[in-house]
Amino acid sequence: MIIRDVIVTPIAFRDPPLLNAAGLHEPLALRSVVRLVVDGGIVGLGEGGGGQQLIRGLEAAGPAVVGKSVFDLNGIEAAINAVLGGGDDALARRDRRAVFSPIEVAAHDAQGKILGLPVSTLLGGAVRDRVPYSAYLFYKWAAHPDPVTGEIGEPDAWGEAVTPEGIVRQARTLIDRYGFESIKLKAGVFPPDEEIAAIRALAEAFPGYPLRIDPNGAWSIETAERVGRELGSILEYFEDPVLGLDGMSEVRARTGLPLATNMCVVAFEHVREAVEKDSVQIILGDHHYWGGLRRTRELGAICETFGIGMSMHSNSHLGISLAAMTHVAAATPTLTYACDTHYPWNREDDIVRPGALEITGGAIAVPTGPGLGVELDEDALERQHRVYLDSAQRDRDDAGYIRRFQPAFDPQLPRF
Amino acid sequence: MIIRDVIVTPIAFRDPPLLNAAGLHEPLALRSVVRLVVDGGIVGLGEGGGGQQLIRGLEAAGPAVVGKSVFDLNGIEAAINAVLGGGDDALARRDRRAVFSPIEVAAHDAQGKILGLPVSTLLGGAVRDRVPYSAYLFYKWAAHPDPVTGEIGEPDAWGEAVTPEGIVRQARTLIDRYGFESIKLKAGVFPPDEEIAAIRALAEAFPGYPLRIDPNGAWSIETAERVGRELGSILEYFEDPVLGLDGMSEVRARTGLPLATNMCVVAFEHVREAVEKDSVQIILGDHHYWGGLRRTRELGAICETFGIGMSMHSNSHLGISLAAMTHVAAATPTLTYACDTHYPWNREDDIVRPGALEITGGAIAVPTGPGLGVELDEDALERQHRVYLDSAQRDRDDAGYIRRFQPAFDPQLPRF
Repeated sequence: MIIRDVIVTPIAFRDPPLLNAAGLHEPLALRSVVRLVVDGGIVGLGEGGGGQQLIRGLEAAGPAVVGKSVFDLNGIEAAINAVLGGGDDALARRDRRAVFSPIEVAAHDAQGKILGLPVSTLLGGAVRDRVPYSAYLFYKWAAHPDPVTGEIGEPDAWGEAVTPEGIVRQARTLIDRYGFESIKLKAGVFPPDEEIAAIRALAEAFPGYPLRIDPNGAWSIETAERVGRELGSILEYFEDPVLGLDGMSEVRARTGLPLATNMCVVAFEHVREAVEKDSVQIILGDHHYWGGLRRTRELGAICETFGIGMSMHSNSHLGISLAAMTHVAAATPTLTYACDTHYPWNREDDIVRPGALEITGGAIAVPTGPGLGVELDEDALERQHRVYLDSAQRDRDDAGYIRRFQPAFDPQLPRF
Repeated sequence: MIIRDVIVTPIAFRDPPLLNAAGLHEPLALRSVVRLVVDGGIVGLGEGGGGQQLIRGLEAAGPAVVGKSVFDLNGIEAAINAVLGGGDDALARRDRRAVFSPIEVAAHDAQGKILGLPVSTLLGGAVRDRVPYSAYLFYKWAAHPDPVTGEIGEPDAWGEAVTPEGIVRQARTLIDRYGFESIKLKAGVFPPDEEIAAIRALAEAFPGYPLRIDPNGAWSIETAERVGRELGSILEYFEDPVLGLDGMSEVRARTGLPLATNMCVVAFEHVREAVEKDSVQIILGDHHYWGGLRRTRELGAICETFGIGMSMHSNSHLGISLAAMTHVAAATPTLTYACDTHYPWNREDDIVRPGALEITGGAIAVPTGPGLGVELDEDALERQHRVYLDSAQRDRDDAGYIRRFQPAFDPQLPRF
């Protein structure tokens, strides 16, 4: 049960030209895959974010956890914190938790493989056998521009989505394919009236579907108040309309709408102030920066205790993360909202063997095999690692990317 | 890994005549022992409170969990809640959690035995290998009165403690025997000036020892303020000086002292109001009514998030509970205060084999064997079950007991 080796593999995989308040998704998304090699040839799998800081953190963490029991999660975390060092503020803690997280996930996977138990059971037992996800809609260019000429050629398989009609078409594709029963629109891209029109078009096309809009803090308080007033009655929740706990508190006071966040409450250290200011009514958990699966369950306990709803945030990710998200969502009673996932946008380059994680009827059946219940495709991992090595990309830069084609783009928020 | 049988055994064991705000400890304390019989002949051990309501709850819960996986803690809890029914308020939830708790502990013990892992590891790993406990002092009669004549005959081995000198003598005995390095006085028994004098005498006799006083809400706000002012500088914390979140909040505002509680925050449903009112600065967790070991860890996460300290409450108990308390304290990083335990008062009638849980240097080494690391002494269990059967006692009634000898005793609080 002793960790003998930690293998960190940076990967890159194709990502469509999705728009958000920060800019445009680059042609490649970056992630990291962690393999914990444990006695008896058992290998635990974890997936974390990309970017050089995180990769360096994982590479530093590896030697610190070799020799530890794969069951000693507290000891593993302490060893990682010791080698990483750094400050005591919320964001420094979040950054350390982001390093711990893929290792914690891999430890859970290894534990489950050793014990013959699914990770959801290690987390206390699945309270639901299917985890619902939402259709995650993006404004989107037809294709990535030519890197030299900046010209957009033939549309990709998803096509363009820059109008209400395009958004409805995209929703239709996702819902036809996966059966999603709720919808989230990534907003903060076009003037608010256009995005209001998109939500209205979705409400008309998909009556009864819970709808969410998330401009990532791109709006002023006044804009958020106006959008809230116009859309309030048809929104399930209103996600990060403005930046910061004070702004969110003000929007809450003005609109009375349930506000969700994955931006102003991203660490345990933010929760107290958020409660005091009534800034958020739903926290989007994310085991990638809340410190792994157990801590996400603990976040659930905190949310339940303080009458806060819980949903789940996503970044571009592949199947190891999807499995981890599904297990922890299954074992967190209070996580009752459909989770976000980017998986439909990126799954073609997945590094786990297909079959274990199919979204049908808008939900994923919680894997019941040992550990995470997914199997690494080593060839695919090698392939996506090659893609990483062959690319020049080392950090995510949505703003820098869109500026290549729209030099006047200003990432400063609020924008509207 | 399937639970095949649940055996609930009510027990009674000798308890000295300890005084508190509610009255006098009866000659017998009541508890329940739960054995979960799992596939492969593995038996998980749990210990819960006594009393008819809890025993009835456990007897109803047993059949509901037979057939469940011993790893499916969420499923076990849901099945228990379904058969118990009842309200949704905090105290109804606490009562259901009190039924779940010994079963959850027994499930952890069984899991550990199946996996060859100590319970602390199942809870994320011990962050300390020794768990400190405090010397738990009680005002005490010399012996239990004769039930017919009411006369107190020869003193028991502990002797009388009704003066500052008696309290210091008792502390000396406990510290000599167990090496405790902090001291708690159960107060609310004598007029506050006498109890102030006792704390001062302890401070003089044991310089540098952290001191706590706990009158169980027996004081008015004014009395608490006065005691706080007189003792504040020498108290580690001030436990339940008054009843209720509002009273505690007022005492906090008037004295600025760190207030601890196991009375006004006894369920997750109480925490939010306590935070809003700044009523408590330290919560004394107790897995027996917070819903088991995992929930106690979650309480730790809540405390940490809201800047609340964590300590641990105790009732009269035997070794299974002591082992469970030690494991969860070891695995809860934020539980940094020495825990309370009544164990020295009751250990002679223990139902686990001696040796696994020795208090030395004021602390217990966290057992490293599988599960809780204690072994049931079946003869001793049978003996204490017989004591239960042969006694008429079915519910704790400290007030009724002291009234037999002091008919004017009024349990109404505040008293002073």
